[in-house]
Amino acid sequence: MQDPKHVFEKEVQALNHAKSVLREKNNSLEKLAKEYEMLSKDYEKLLGDARVITNISDRLQNRLNKANDELNRANRDLQSSSAEINRKNDLLQNTIDELTKARVSKKATTIVLMAAILLFLVSEVFWSLSWILISTRFYYQYCHQRLYRITAQAH
Amino acid sequence: MQDPKHVFEKEVQALNHAKSVLREKNNSLEKLAKEYEMLSKDYEKLLGDARVITNISDRLQNRLNKANDELNRANRDLQSSSAEINRKNDLLQNTIDELTKARVSKKATTIVLMAAILLFLVSEVFWSLSWILISTRFYYQYCHQRLYRITAQAH
Repeated sequence: MQDPKHVFEKEVQALNHAKSVLREKNNSLEKLAKEYEMLSKDYEKLLGDARVITNISDRLQNRLNKANDELNRANRDLQSSSAEINRKNDLLQNTIDELTKARVSKKATTIVLMAAILLFLVSEVFWSLSWILISTRFYYQYCHQRLYRITAQAH
Repeated sequence: MQDPKHVFEKEVQALNHAKSVLREKNNSLEKLAKEYEMLSKDYEKLLGDARVITNISDRLQNRLNKANDELNRANRDLQSSSAEINRKNDLLQNTIDELTKARVSKKATTIVLMAAILLFLVSEVFWSLSWILISTRFYYQYCHQRLYRITAQAH
């Protein structure tokens, strides 16, 4: 907006003119009546301007109140959003921790599974060899005894 | 703020008075000079008021501009926060999905592990029984043969 001194330049000139009229001692009735009429019109115009400016000022005040209300609401929303982001961050961190635990636990279970399979295979080999050995040993002994029996019967 | 008509009540009265003075045809020079002086003072006062109101209006305009700037910034921040919340939600959903997969996978591995342990135990029992049976069988046979041999030698 313009400098108020500049905005009311004409009005200041009118006031200065009125003051100079007042300072004059030899004003005629006719001249004074004319000056009075001019000053009345200036006054009426200034009153109209003052009303317009007051209306503008009122509207600005209303818009400012509205803007402040919206700003307060936006700031409250921002606070809520900030709290929501913090909540999501905590939730995300907890979920990531659980995921890490689950992955470590799965890895451990897989290692135990591999160990169990290996143990199973080793056990199978051990039992198989053991079975073969004992079967061979007893079968050999059986054959030997059988042969001895046949030989004894022949004598 | 008050109704402008009410705010400028005195000024309206002064204007109406000036108009009534103008309507009078038989004003004396002395009276008119006095009225002119009064009107000049009213004009000066009204000009001062108009300047004050203009200053207030200017300040209101500045505050409104500032409030609007802050509001724009707050709205931009809100948009950023909203985008951040959406991003966090996506990230959280992905992490939850991965956690669910990891848990299902861990459960499956655990079931396989249990099955492997069960198979191992069943196998151990099978081999043990098998070993005991064959040992008993051959040992019985061995004893029988041995007895037969001793009997044969006695004859």
